[in-house]
Amino acid sequence: MVVRKAKAPKSPEILLFAASESDADAFYFSQVSVPDPFIAFSHEGRRLAVVNQLEFSRVRREGHFDEVLQLEDWLPVARNLASGNEVYPAGVIAAVAGKFDIREFIIPEGFPAGVAFQLLELGLRVKPAQGSLFPQREFKSDEEAKAVREGNAASSAGFKVVEKVLREAKIQGNRLIYQGRALTSERLRQKIEIACIERGAQALNPIVAGGDQACDPHCRGSGLLRPHELIIVDIFPRVTATGYHGDMTRTYLKGRPSEAQKALVQTVLDAEQWALGEHRARKSGKKIYEGVQERFRSAGYETRRDEDGNPVGFFHGLGHGLGLEVHEPPRVNRAGDPLRKDQVITVEPGLYYPGLGGCRFEDVVRITAGEPEMLSKHPYRWRIR
Amino acid sequence: MVVRKAKAPKSPEILLFAASESDADAFYFSQVSVPDPFIAFSHEGRRLAVVNQLEFSRVRREGHFDEVLQLEDWLPVARNLASGNEVYPAGVIAAVAGKFDIREFIIPEGFPAGVAFQLLELGLRVKPAQGSLFPQREFKSDEEAKAVREGNAASSAGFKVVEKVLREAKIQGNRLIYQGRALTSERLRQKIEIACIERGAQALNPIVAGGDQACDPHCRGSGLLRPHELIIVDIFPRVTATGYHGDMTRTYLKGRPSEAQKALVQTVLDAEQWALGEHRARKSGKKIYEGVQERFRSAGYETRRDEDGNPVGFFHGLGHGLGLEVHEPPRVNRAGDPLRKDQVITVEPGLYYPGLGGCRFEDVVRITAGEPEMLSKHPYRWRIR
Repeated sequence: MVVRKAKAPKSPEILLFAASESDADAFYFSQVSVPDPFIAFSHEGRRLAVVNQLEFSRVRREGHFDEVLQLEDWLPVARNLASGNEVYPAGVIAAVAGKFDIREFIIPEGFPAGVAFQLLELGLRVKPAQGSLFPQREFKSDEEAKAVREGNAASSAGFKVVEKVLREAKIQGNRLIYQGRALTSERLRQKIEIACIERGAQALNPIVAGGDQACDPHCRGSGLLRPHELIIVDIFPRVTATGYHGDMTRTYLKGRPSEAQKALVQTVLDAEQWALGEHRARKSGKKIYEGVQERFRSAGYETRRDEDGNPVGFFHGLGHGLGLEVHEPPRVNRAGDPLRKDQVITVEPGLYYPGLGGCRFEDVVRITAGEPEMLSKHPYRWRIR
Repeated sequence: MVVRKAKAPKSPEILLFAASESDADAFYFSQVSVPDPFIAFSHEGRRLAVVNQLEFSRVRREGHFDEVLQLEDWLPVARNLASGNEVYPAGVIAAVAGKFDIREFIIPEGFPAGVAFQLLELGLRVKPAQGSLFPQREFKSDEEAKAVREGNAASSAGFKVVEKVLREAKIQGNRLIYQGRALTSERLRQKIEIACIERGAQALNPIVAGGDQACDPHCRGSGLLRPHELIIVDIFPRVTATGYHGDMTRTYLKGRPSEAQKALVQTVLDAEQWALGEHRARKSGKKIYEGVQERFRSAGYETRRDEDGNPVGFFHGLGHGLGLEVHEPPRVNRAGDPLRKDQVITVEPGLYYPGLGGCRFEDVVRITAGEPEMLSKHPYRWRIR
């Protein structure tokens, strides 16, 4: 007698509609860089994509798909189904879902709402993932850790150029003269970008911000760089071959630092070195963040709003996950979750006081049970004579 | 007697949640580059943003907002409202919507579905825009046209480097030797990227594809470049200062072209020049596209699938809108809509036959009532001895 197994209820499949050149989940799923949004989905453990004839051969050859469908073949079916909705992508998604008997999709939180609403109208269930669609992206393999190291090697190449230029620059009054012209954030940024490109990475708008500009941690910096002022340089290049990023920060000063500047830098450096050592599996990222705040406070560096309502002190997170995105999970600072093995995290305390200046140092670790594995390496020399 | 006017029904306001550094609508609306997603919305003709304290000062100073709210002030209200939904961004959006008495938002099609679904649960109406959220983005002002010209000047700087390297390269057997080493797509791409950076633009993975690689129009190209083969170079840099792009393509051959290669290139060049002249207000983009197809067909270049099912011939669009995005509306090829004054459009016919090679030329025009205004300029010399 043949026992017929009861059919298990179908578990929802994954659906993506994004350009894998810019969307990390789509790149993680497809392993091929496509400049325009395309349909990718799972079906019973297999990975499928629907791409137009322009991308077909390349995605079939280079992507990690079990099957690649050609968009043009599905348009007639989609036209029949769409009924008032867009034929592409909604109609096409409905068509392939019908073919593979899929009724429900899990979508990433960032899935385009316009498409999601149309899929609902077409009778499909779509459910945004709670948190990450691919939580395993948080945990980096040796190969991924190596790719992040390569990103940080590009950052380090950028710092070397900055140090060389600042060393060679001459102080003339309140200007820095380099190769006959006043040195600006823009010129230094260009040199960093070129140094990264020569290492196969794109520097994506690095920060070169001096003086009070550096007190806005996301200000890119513009105009003249001054002697005797702190200059924050934050370089987070994307390695073209792998899509993974580096992310490192160093602070510099060309000329003579004041006692207050020296104390500020030493406090941040000490906090960074302490925090790096604390990054171990099972420790709470939130506790380390609070530990840094406490060290700053007890050294006399308060975090508060100034008289204009602008924040001063240490008013950003201590770090973030790093990989295919510059900012990605885990979010380690505010949540109480313990750190876990193989997470790759930046550690970047900073202090910012207009008038005195800004200072930040940033390195990258991979979490282990013991000493963290450093994925970034560059000296901390900040005074340049 | 005071006549009390009946209150008009509220028209829906715009809502965005995106990183303006990478999202063109968010940049268009805010005019400031922010690396992480943030809330921006309209209210009775005013533009508002909600940003965290890290971005607050800079967005208030540099962005085109009438009012910038600080996220931290709204979190307590959001926590009360969120009830099972995420406090940020959904709870915060609900909180500010409540404050400004907004019940319905228009969102861009690409608005994150996860957030949209939560807003629905929180009792807000959200409606994806039909087509573009900002249709006026299609029509470029003189200032925007100038920004696109600057992007194309960076493309042109890239071609100059390519031409110089190919001129100086020596043919040795089936290799090109440049400065003692075999020339690859990667080396040439790096030189293009540096040339663009020196003009204040980022080249975003330009295409340098020779031989059969060029027959996949989105293949970036890798490995050795060969003499006597067609090499397609497509450079679409983003000008850092403005966010606008250039997009131009030239085809080269180092060595001796065959008669078939010469005919292919001449056919594409003639088609491009003809199509450029046809781009005028009120003409149909679709008709111009069909005109190019017809010219190719009558010259003996058929568009079809080869024996492996791969497309050959002219199997992509003739062009696309260009501006804050490399590919943006209008979609001119398939729709029958007439061209309209001030649209900025690429014109890029190509032909691709594995064995023979690929060829594409691309320029950019702004539509006028008469002769199109050329926004790109670079010679068409393709044979390099």
